[in-house]
Amino acid sequence: MKISVITAFPELMRSYAASSVLGRAVSSGKLEVRIIDVRDFSHGAYRQIDDYCYGAGGMMLMAEPLAEALESASGWGKPYVVYPSPQGTHLHQELVEDLSRKEHLTIVCGHYEGIDERFTQKYVDAEISLGDFVLTGGEMPAMAIIDAVSRLIPGVVGSASSVTEDSFYGGMLDTPHYTRPAEWRGEKVPEVLTGGDAKAIERWRRRRSVERTLERRPDVAARAGIIPWLSGGAYVVEVHY
Amino acid sequence: MKISVITAFPELMRSYAASSVLGRAVSSGKLEVRIIDVRDFSHGAYRQIDDYCYGAGGMMLMAEPLAEALESASGWGKPYVVYPSPQGTHLHQELVEDLSRKEHLTIVCGHYEGIDERFTQKYVDAEISLGDFVLTGGEMPAMAIIDAVSRLIPGVVGSASSVTEDSFYGGMLDTPHYTRPAEWRGEKVPEVLTGGDAKAIERWRRRRSVERTLERRPDVAARAGIIPWLSGGAYVVEVHY
Repeated sequence: MKISVITAFPELMRSYAASSVLGRAVSSGKLEVRIIDVRDFSHGAYRQIDDYCYGAGGMMLMAEPLAEALESASGWGKPYVVYPSPQGTHLHQELVEDLSRKEHLTIVCGHYEGIDERFTQKYVDAEISLGDFVLTGGEMPAMAIIDAVSRLIPGVVGSASSVTEDSFYGGMLDTPHYTRPAEWRGEKVPEVLTGGDAKAIERWRRRRSVERTLERRPDVAARAGIIPWLSGGAYVVEVHY
Repeated sequence: MKISVITAFPELMRSYAASSVLGRAVSSGKLEVRIIDVRDFSHGAYRQIDDYCYGAGGMMLMAEPLAEALESASGWGKPYVVYPSPQGTHLHQELVEDLSRKEHLTIVCGHYEGIDERFTQKYVDAEISLGDFVLTGGEMPAMAIIDAVSRLIPGVVGSASSVTEDSFYGGMLDTPHYTRPAEWRGEKVPEVLTGGDAKAIERWRRRRSVERTLERRPDVAARAGIIPWLSGGAYVVEVHY
């Protein structure tokens, strides 16, 4: 998979591309990431990439440098262009899976008041938001999208099970997890988890998962359809409060 | 304001703290950010910070190194502890405003299957999610939270108007924005925006904002209460489709 990022703040994106989990994916050749500095496509004596917003004040990125930056990335195949913006669709796991199947994902990072709407209309395939809050630019969402997408590439996360057993794959919130020591600062790990009865552990995890989802995210419980989770039997009564 | 970040991947967080907008906030003294490497609080010959999950497999962060890392940050005043996790409350602008009023925000980054639930129960004040998608760790959400919070600190973003005029402050999605040139690759800026009639511009912006919100995020329109937006008069009919 290939990912291009068009940004006016390339250093942060470059240190991200070189770091941690993503660094391993990149160095193993499973993922190619190219950071494109929009300033390389500026024009005139002042190397301008932004200008005042018509009728509103505030600064925004101009269409031409972004378009030229995008055209420079076309050697990697037709880009699927994502523009992170608070006006976009909320990112969710199905959309992440969708993006992970693109051959060449290109993320255009806005700043200030955003980017010229004519660029968005002409080139952007998906406007994506991380949620109803305001960020200084598109770099954080770009990193979050790359992180979420890259972990679906086989071999990037340690084992397939750590992808498939994660939150939301069953449609419910994840259960609480515990590790050693069995007693820590007076608090013990729930006995069932250290008991070695695999069926009892599975029952406990499902029950906690359903309980948690009902407590914290009833919307998710509704979406997931709680019925298949309850069909196993005995724990139905326990979660039915 | 003070922000501590407890992480097993300190380099990325350090390059973030030194970069772009946040770097300016930090160097101007308006924000102090401390990156705490959880490995500095590991024990034993192997400097272990993670271990197998009871009853599930997968690796997770142990409670003791996290607790000691947290205690090491207490010199900055009582921390308000945020743990980014897919099981948390979705981040939204009101929550960001809330966090921006904390004296000492501390973000604990999980990895793998997460962190020991006993640590969460004992120390975490808020479990916060960026949305229903899975990331490799808490570093991306930590950066997004810091970015969103720090831009509310007076003087961090260029002008107060760029904070207050942004998306969601009026409860609606932002309007499209345009900048020079007035004609770009055959596409013109909407005439009203270049005309200089401030009232007409304001009317156009409100109408597009309401239209966009109805098209893309009817949930937001419902939450914002569309009535005050329509009370201005003439454009009511135009958006009422």
